[in-house]
Amino acid sequence: MSAIDDLVGQFARLPGIGRKTALRLAFHLLKQPEDEARRLAASILEVRERVRPCTRCGNLSEEDPCGICRSGRRDVAIVCVVEESSDIMAIERTGEYRGLYHVLGGRLSPLDGIGPSELSVQPLLERAGAEEVREVVLATNPSVEGEATALYLGRLLAPLGVRVTRIARGLPVGGDLEYADGVTIAEALSARREM
Amino acid sequence: MSAIDDLVGQFARLPGIGRKTALRLAFHLLKQPEDEARRLAASILEVRERVRPCTRCGNLSEEDPCGICRSGRRDVAIVCVVEESSDIMAIERTGEYRGLYHVLGGRLSPLDGIGPSELSVQPLLERAGAEEVREVVLATNPSVEGEATALYLGRLLAPLGVRVTRIARGLPVGGDLEYADGVTIAEALSARREM
Repeated sequence: MSAIDDLVGQFARLPGIGRKTALRLAFHLLKQPEDEARRLAASILEVRERVRPCTRCGNLSEEDPCGICRSGRRDVAIVCVVEESSDIMAIERTGEYRGLYHVLGGRLSPLDGIGPSELSVQPLLERAGAEEVREVVLATNPSVEGEATALYLGRLLAPLGVRVTRIARGLPVGGDLEYADGVTIAEALSARREM
Repeated sequence: MSAIDDLVGQFARLPGIGRKTALRLAFHLLKQPEDEARRLAASILEVRERVRPCTRCGNLSEEDPCGICRSGRRDVAIVCVVEESSDIMAIERTGEYRGLYHVLGGRLSPLDGIGPSELSVQPLLERAGAEEVREVVLATNPSVEGEATALYLGRLLAPLGVRVTRIARGLPVGGDLEYADGVTIAEALSARREM
């Protein structure tokens, strides 16, 4: 196999990259100064070398514990449970959350063979049982599987005496009622609040 | 800057890759087995190391002259002129063309400072003047700049006594008249052929 075909194949394995995009990327790297390509390759290797999951919360980080777990300015009384480390980045970008995190590493999905033992559930229960934790926010995705996972965790967490909350579902800000799906509208209605 | 941010930045410089896609790619590489990431990095380095433009036709290849120029089974009487090496791949995929190629390395674009001297025009004239060449097919893109480039080359090539042809414009196969633009429809009408 030629070097170009090989690289195209590698690119095409990435999520959201089809064969045509992979081809365009490969030819782009061939047209750019060689340095550009070398830097990309180096970045890929470096990220794998330096980034590891935090042993406390599962957040991908270059330090262990991660910057969030080590920070003295976070509220240790709240733990926000997310499916993936990338969800933490999305929440952190808002700047609205000051607590800690816990990465499950996925969601319950019996069809894919993902049960509670494949996720970081036991460590979550241990953390939630600690004295300083007062609230666990379940921030799994608002998908069928994410909801099921939240439901399951909610039941396990209830006996521990912590407050268990779920992120709100409703119409996305900037969205349009006319184009929203019925389930979302129904959720938005039933979760309506006083103004 | 963190290793993740750095990689995301590198990905986001690639054509067609926005910040969100770049993030997804970076996290994907972090979730895959480390081997996967290492193979991608190696492919990027290898393609830059091994692939060079063919000194005869400009096609990107691991050999020089490239496989097409060296093949004994191509028709050396026809030279197909394309803007980029990636265009050769598109034509080769059809399996319909048996001649040789010539890569211009772009198209005339005065606004971007691309004149004839920035393109491989002189080498093309030398090749077209060779005894065995009977036809030059101008296969630059059917864009304004591609047309202008074809027109320009056509004038330079005419005195050499070779047949100069231009690839046909018309409705794309599987396309729909209703959604085609007027210029394309006009071209398709004026270039109509007997059935």
